[in-house]
Amino acid sequence: MSEELQVTLREAIPDDAAALIEVMKQLAEETDFLIMDQPALEMTLEMMALNLAALYESPNNCLFIAFVNGKIVGLASIKASDDYRVAHIGEVGISLLKDYWGFGLGSLLMEELILWAEEGQLLRRLELTVQVRNQRAIHLYEKMGFEKEATIARGARSEDGAFLDVYLMRLFIN
Amino acid sequence: MSEELQVTLREAIPDDAAALIEVMKQLAEETDFLIMDQPALEMTLEMMALNLAALYESPNNCLFIAFVNGKIVGLASIKASDDYRVAHIGEVGISLLKDYWGFGLGSLLMEELILWAEEGQLLRRLELTVQVRNQRAIHLYEKMGFEKEATIARGARSEDGAFLDVYLMRLFIN
Repeated sequence: MSEELQVTLREAIPDDAAALIEVMKQLAEETDFLIMDQPALEMTLEMMALNLAALYESPNNCLFIAFVNGKIVGLASIKASDDYRVAHIGEVGISLLKDYWGFGLGSLLMEELILWAEEGQLLRRLELTVQVRNQRAIHLYEKMGFEKEATIARGARSEDGAFLDVYLMRLFIN
Repeated sequence: MSEELQVTLREAIPDDAAALIEVMKQLAEETDFLIMDQPALEMTLEMMALNLAALYESPNNCLFIAFVNGKIVGLASIKASDDYRVAHIGEVGISLLKDYWGFGLGSLLMEELILWAEEGQLLRRLELTVQVRNQRAIHLYEKMGFEKEATIARGARSEDGAFLDVYLMRLFIN
């Protein structure tokens, strides 16, 4: 990163479609996290723009972009269902380009998501899963107020095929 | 039900599309369960047929139909991700028309799903969530070998807005 660092966080809009398709491809290679149900690779520009418009309007789904000196370096999202019975539950995801790990951007994005959820008043529980071995991420989530709720056996699999435990973590929004 | 009862279980195929759209609408009104990510109400016949073809070919997703005397009365599904890291985790859902509750069809469908998962060799963990107050369903799942893994606070919401605990239940496939 350059010495002068300008960080901007804002919600994604349809005009971001082309840049997001590019960065999602890179993030898919580098990290475990899928921001949208469908891989960005399979999405046309029009589909992505429509998805972004729907996300922007949604009361319980959102997508935030982190820019560093004008370049997209990370994404943060909350996904929730339309179904009333579970519409108060938001699944949190944060994904940063590897070159930008360790600078506090994950914490900034998480704070933004929590604020967004608190302002919206519809979400009442945020949740995420994280591999038990991913201590750095767990520490960040706990710092932000998340609690471990359960250990899920076989919740993930490593590249060599070994089963991994994952924590289910939650944060109540009141 | 008539006195003579003929029960058939089989995997759904694209030709079932029209009948499935109808029954999914009815199930959506009667039960909590969404078989597909998208509500059947919003799906065209062509979309449904394409979805069914993809399900039929998938190694870790399936949709079974229960017929009683030739009429569709229930559905059972396993949903899993393409992502290698979690492709061994299948989310189970069973949905029966209310008139057909209490005749053991839920157990039959669950047995079929477990057999299908065991034969496929890709799925290694089946999971589901169920409201803690839904003792009948919990009993059925335990009879089939599922274990309670965690209690998820605010995991659902009742019609009057009260938060409900849900159990996360799991069954290992070995």
